[in-house]
Amino acid sequence: MSNIEPTTAEFSLIARLKETLARGAAGDRHLVCGIGDDAAVLRPDPDLLLVTCTDTLVSGVHFPAQASPADIGWKALAVNLSDLAAMGARPRWAQLSLTLPAVDDNWLDDFIQGWQALASQHEVVLIGGDTTRGPLSITVQLLGDVAPTALLTRDGGRAGDLLAVTGRIGGAALALHQLQSGQQPTAAALARLHRPAPRVAVGRVLAGLATSCIDLSDGLVNDLPHLLKASATGAQVQVDQLPVDGLLDGLAPQQRLDLAIGGGDDYELCLSLPKAHLDTARARLADLGVDLTPIGNLTDTGTLQWQGAEHLQISAGWRHFEGGSA
Amino acid sequence: MSNIEPTTAEFSLIARLKETLARGAAGDRHLVCGIGDDAAVLRPDPDLLLVTCTDTLVSGVHFPAQASPADIGWKALAVNLSDLAAMGARPRWAQLSLTLPAVDDNWLDDFIQGWQALASQHEVVLIGGDTTRGPLSITVQLLGDVAPTALLTRDGGRAGDLLAVTGRIGGAALALHQLQSGQQPTAAALARLHRPAPRVAVGRVLAGLATSCIDLSDGLVNDLPHLLKASATGAQVQVDQLPVDGLLDGLAPQQRLDLAIGGGDDYELCLSLPKAHLDTARARLADLGVDLTPIGNLTDTGTLQWQGAEHLQISAGWRHFEGGSA
Repeated sequence: MSNIEPTTAEFSLIARLKETLARGAAGDRHLVCGIGDDAAVLRPDPDLLLVTCTDTLVSGVHFPAQASPADIGWKALAVNLSDLAAMGARPRWAQLSLTLPAVDDNWLDDFIQGWQALASQHEVVLIGGDTTRGPLSITVQLLGDVAPTALLTRDGGRAGDLLAVTGRIGGAALALHQLQSGQQPTAAALARLHRPAPRVAVGRVLAGLATSCIDLSDGLVNDLPHLLKASATGAQVQVDQLPVDGLLDGLAPQQRLDLAIGGGDDYELCLSLPKAHLDTARARLADLGVDLTPIGNLTDTGTLQWQGAEHLQISAGWRHFEGGSA
Repeated sequence: MSNIEPTTAEFSLIARLKETLARGAAGDRHLVCGIGDDAAVLRPDPDLLLVTCTDTLVSGVHFPAQASPADIGWKALAVNLSDLAAMGARPRWAQLSLTLPAVDDNWLDDFIQGWQALASQHEVVLIGGDTTRGPLSITVQLLGDVAPTALLTRDGGRAGDLLAVTGRIGGAALALHQLQSGQQPTAAALARLHRPAPRVAVGRVLAGLATSCIDLSDGLVNDLPHLLKASATGAQVQVDQLPVDGLLDGLAPQQRLDLAIGGGDDYELCLSLPKAHLDTARARLADLGVDLTPIGNLTDTGTLQWQGAEHLQISAGWRHFEGGSA
């Protein structure tokens, strides 16, 4: 006869995540069951529960670490928030699958700090997840909600709509390029790369104004075609109107363009809207401290045309294949 | 002026997943938007949408491959289905984050075939996901639903309830042990390891009968304490009543016990229920072709006691730390 204590390294890892990242869960009236069972249970409606879980299978061991654990925590959440932003959704619940080479409290503390810095801005509560030993890998699953009338998709763009981009593009790609070529980026450039600010609030005020929307994770040259394909339109982009990050000033024109449209990691939104909505959209975004820059038009040509760049090369796939979101 | 074709290796990978794994999505009246946008959108209620997405950050490259891609596809889904089974939920929607060292169509075809063999049994539709290049890693996110009255949790067990286990345990651990020690497992043992049958249908007929439930992913010795902690009870387990897999017949008693309760990967359910419900529960499970074996009782002692194993060692953590679900 033996007594078994249910305390293992694994258990304390989950307890640690629960203590730090699931605060507020108890006060959430839609959350029936968060961390602590096999899956999380949501009750969006009195007669319906939704249950959600996540799990990771990993093989392989390797450990580079270009970024600090805190930056990884921030960015793992940020890239998902950006996806919800592009849908006009309010992020609510996150699940985290964390694969670590070893239980490392310092690493975890830093990761949590970076995650929570962003999660608290958006009131995102961790409701579950999974921890595995293996090569460092982080998967985040986010669940959000949105009123049916406020949903943004990629497929509503129409020929004649303006095409516009939020914020400034190219700064993150500059930092990555500098790191890869052994230069030290400025703190401002590193922040663009490691601490992107997902446009969640922007996505939520575009309801009724934008006709289509996508987030810029892989660069305009790679992401815009997805919007055009979904909307079944072409586009003309005025290269000299692109809101290129001031950090890129002084670069040769070709490199500046490559970084601005091909580098990715901007997590700005690219959207279409009728010209009549531009002033309202700009005013709403100005209230949020975000610029909205028209960069061209959707067309019925079926092609994507870059105007004002006749002397420059426009290269899709300038950046290495990195995958994408389905 | 250049024309950009939105066709990349990435795009065709996602198209491939969509073609093969998201069939049926168009006919799902709750699914507003599946693969093809930044996130998936659900409409569980006319006035509410739920949006869900997943993303993976990976570092490191390495490729072992103990199992075939088809087995990996099956198991990645199975372990998540088992989590929902333990909640009594009906699985509905899956998201898949796939990290691959390279775009490999053969690998993907096999993976899809294994996944779909199980997904079609449970009518699970893929609604989104993410592909990344990196060391092989698969993360699955499942979303399901359940009537409020049918939800199973870990915390409802009461002293005096019977403790019971579905099916047979230990077969998967035997196969893993044999592989690790250079022996060739039988086809039956390999099937237990690589093709576990998650107890989804069982979970759904336990409504009103079971007071608590957990799935056995890490072995009874590791998983049962989670149920006891959540239910705030102790337990007495009769070791000679454990439904040990016939594949373990002939092993030395200590090894047989280690594999049966410590090896994990069974994906059977362990549940508590009042004695008065046992016959009904067994009859319902018999209709599904599944045995239900009482293995002991919940107690008010606050400890987990293994009876009938006085001459044997009960070792928690017999198996290496592998992480767990939050």
